[in-house]
Amino acid sequence: MRLSHAFIPTLKETPNEAQIASHRLMLRAGLVRQTSAGIYAWLPLGLRVLRNIERIVREEQDGAGAQEILMPTIQPAELWKESGRYEDYGKEMLRIRDRHERDMLYGPTNEEMVTDLFRQSVKSYRELPQILYHIQWKFRDEVRPRFGVMRGREFLMKDAYSFDLDHAGAVASYRKMMLAYMRTFQRMGLKAIPMEADTGPIGGDLSHEFIILAPTGESQVYYDAAFEEIDYLSAGAGGFSHEKPEDLARFFQEMTTHYAATDEKHDTARWDQVTAERKREGRGIEVGHIFYFGTKYTKSMGATVAGPDGKQVHPEMGSYGIGVSRLVGAVIEASHDDAGIIWPDSIAPFKAAILNLKIGDAACDALCEQLYAAFGGNALYDDRTDRAGAKFADADLMGHPWQIVVGPRGAAAGKVELKRRATGERVEVTPAEALSRIG
Amino acid sequence: MRLSHAFIPTLKETPNEAQIASHRLMLRAGLVRQTSAGIYAWLPLGLRVLRNIERIVREEQDGAGAQEILMPTIQPAELWKESGRYEDYGKEMLRIRDRHERDMLYGPTNEEMVTDLFRQSVKSYRELPQILYHIQWKFRDEVRPRFGVMRGREFLMKDAYSFDLDHAGAVASYRKMMLAYMRTFQRMGLKAIPMEADTGPIGGDLSHEFIILAPTGESQVYYDAAFEEIDYLSAGAGGFSHEKPEDLARFFQEMTTHYAATDEKHDTARWDQVTAERKREGRGIEVGHIFYFGTKYTKSMGATVAGPDGKQVHPEMGSYGIGVSRLVGAVIEASHDDAGIIWPDSIAPFKAAILNLKIGDAACDALCEQLYAAFGGNALYDDRTDRAGAKFADADLMGHPWQIVVGPRGAAAGKVELKRRATGERVEVTPAEALSRIG
Repeated sequence: MRLSHAFIPTLKETPNEAQIASHRLMLRAGLVRQTSAGIYAWLPLGLRVLRNIERIVREEQDGAGAQEILMPTIQPAELWKESGRYEDYGKEMLRIRDRHERDMLYGPTNEEMVTDLFRQSVKSYRELPQILYHIQWKFRDEVRPRFGVMRGREFLMKDAYSFDLDHAGAVASYRKMMLAYMRTFQRMGLKAIPMEADTGPIGGDLSHEFIILAPTGESQVYYDAAFEEIDYLSAGAGGFSHEKPEDLARFFQEMTTHYAATDEKHDTARWDQVTAERKREGRGIEVGHIFYFGTKYTKSMGATVAGPDGKQVHPEMGSYGIGVSRLVGAVIEASHDDAGIIWPDSIAPFKAAILNLKIGDAACDALCEQLYAAFGGNALYDDRTDRAGAKFADADLMGHPWQIVVGPRGAAAGKVELKRRATGERVEVTPAEALSRIG
Repeated sequence: MRLSHAFIPTLKETPNEAQIASHRLMLRAGLVRQTSAGIYAWLPLGLRVLRNIERIVREEQDGAGAQEILMPTIQPAELWKESGRYEDYGKEMLRIRDRHERDMLYGPTNEEMVTDLFRQSVKSYRELPQILYHIQWKFRDEVRPRFGVMRGREFLMKDAYSFDLDHAGAVASYRKMMLAYMRTFQRMGLKAIPMEADTGPIGGDLSHEFIILAPTGESQVYYDAAFEEIDYLSAGAGGFSHEKPEDLARFFQEMTTHYAATDEKHDTARWDQVTAERKREGRGIEVGHIFYFGTKYTKSMGATVAGPDGKQVHPEMGSYGIGVSRLVGAVIEASHDDAGIIWPDSIAPFKAAILNLKIGDAACDALCEQLYAAFGGNALYDDRTDRAGAKFADADLMGHPWQIVVGPRGAAAGKVELKRRATGERVEVTPAEALSRIG
């Protein structure tokens, strides 16, 4: 993308309404614009990050055997009356009456709808287990939306729903999803800690929330060093496979044995038993929540399958959410400095920015065009006529993992300056070497 | 995907509510399920097609220089009051009041919102032209939703918006989008005809709708053979490039000179001037609509940029829609037979189905697993214990471009039967040959 014509409206001033780092930086770097309270339009730079996060979430859901579907945003009230949750949700639910005076709502979650799809379609235990997920916009009419996309009203969520014949199956699905989550966050360059949680309005017996560490996070977090030491992506010895029950059991054991709590649930007596060198503290942000709630919805909504003995059985369910749009903000909270965003490579909007310090200089222009072509669309080319200082500042603000700085002296000598955003390290290299380091 | 555990609920019976072929086949093949009148959940098979169509639409928009953004589904009423369209839309607009009693709506289109984003961000003619697009769910509260996803209430649309300094620029953007549309439809295996159209509630001076040919289409279409003879994807001599004004002019000339009309606007006097051998008639379905409306929104909403002489200018706009979810139905109307859907290769949910005629036969199982692995997820493996007849019928119904039939006799001899869905042609080949033909 050529910056001179890109729709990336950066701001020099920090907008007044932005109280936290990610909100400030997302507005300043031109990632999003607010269109109503708590509702945002995603501009090209922000949308590329959102899609990258979505892609990693999707790959890990698919890898765990979940199947992607897409349920609509608008739901009929009847389904929620069946489950008994229509009244429970109160004013957070955006209620709508259509032209025929039917009660509808903008879905805040999809337990009812997915249970309805399931009961229409699945008839036998032979078709179980099933894990269905979708990545769809949700709406929660927060009283006081704030913190940008971190607590918006319209937000993108991945929600998965598991159906199993019995408790043992449901536990296996729960563990698979937990592993998928830890892999997902690790791939995004985040440190995540699963913590036992209350089940709230979803209901159920077992629940974990996933907190990622960020210096500017909303809660204080206490945890054992173990969570940082595990490589969730490793498939080798000591690693975990979704498909091996013994791996899932060992993984779940690891996740639930070591101490982890936010200040709300902090248990100083248990914390004191953690040895000093294994104690870790930090700030954290919730980005995911998983629930096992058994037959709560399959019973209230009459969803059954024929069991092995021919008798009708209510399948056991769980549900599993990741805040996809929230993660964009959370990653920024975890990875930024005074100059701007520092994107992890896996979700960066572009691999690199190419900074042409002298537009109109034949050698600079030619070299930049050549580099730009080599990236096949995966670089942002700063071809504006602005001064060098503005280009450096914008590249730091937008947070591309690499910057390739092309000046007239270097271009004449066949050299560029390669800067790594995360470390600030700069080296003078040939263009070929810059491309090969970026990979 | 393994069919035994896939969430693909096929139906033996044709549902009563389905009046047209695509609606019947989408329900029967398990692509979608209705969740409220005119609102559908997309199941794995249908979602894969939707995503493939979305991908082609996106690639062609990007190729024409449009930039992808993502605007929210819920819009504030104020923007529509500014443009004066809040009352115009009547009951088709889904109106919502939030918890703070603010008037909101579920966007049926986005001229107002994109003009608002533009006026906040773009200040100079130097940043023009801009074409912004998004692929987002829309809602139109139809009185009588019907024909499945062809006339749903919640539907997925690609809508693009161009901003140019002057009339000449706006015309160039209009032509670019028209070319992008013809390329898009050709890549989906569709024959499309652009037709002059009324501008309706969007307003403006110039408008074309895009009709694709389908034997079961909603309107009668009369057109010159020229539209079928042009290769819109050709970049060579006689082809068209987005970047060359002379190509765009020649292309637009071709699209507007030859006769094309639906029965509503059929002009028998002009039709009589088309020579007999160039006359074509058929049925068609509208899948896209483009508009040039100049300064209608930039004036009413006060969007300006500084022109070359420093004076403020209202940019000229156009808008460009493609019914993405509607296209899934339209493609089926264009390509099916009595047995089921016939997917064009470019948008098929899977490249091939692998039919194991004898589950439990060691040679069949081994060969099928080997073939399935070779497709890397891009095949549907029918590993159910059903009889062969049911597998043949379901594969035809779901419409995979290729079927690889693996029976015990063939497997023992290292042979499979390869069937091309579109032609019904069957050949006995080695597994390697089957893979190489499918490509």
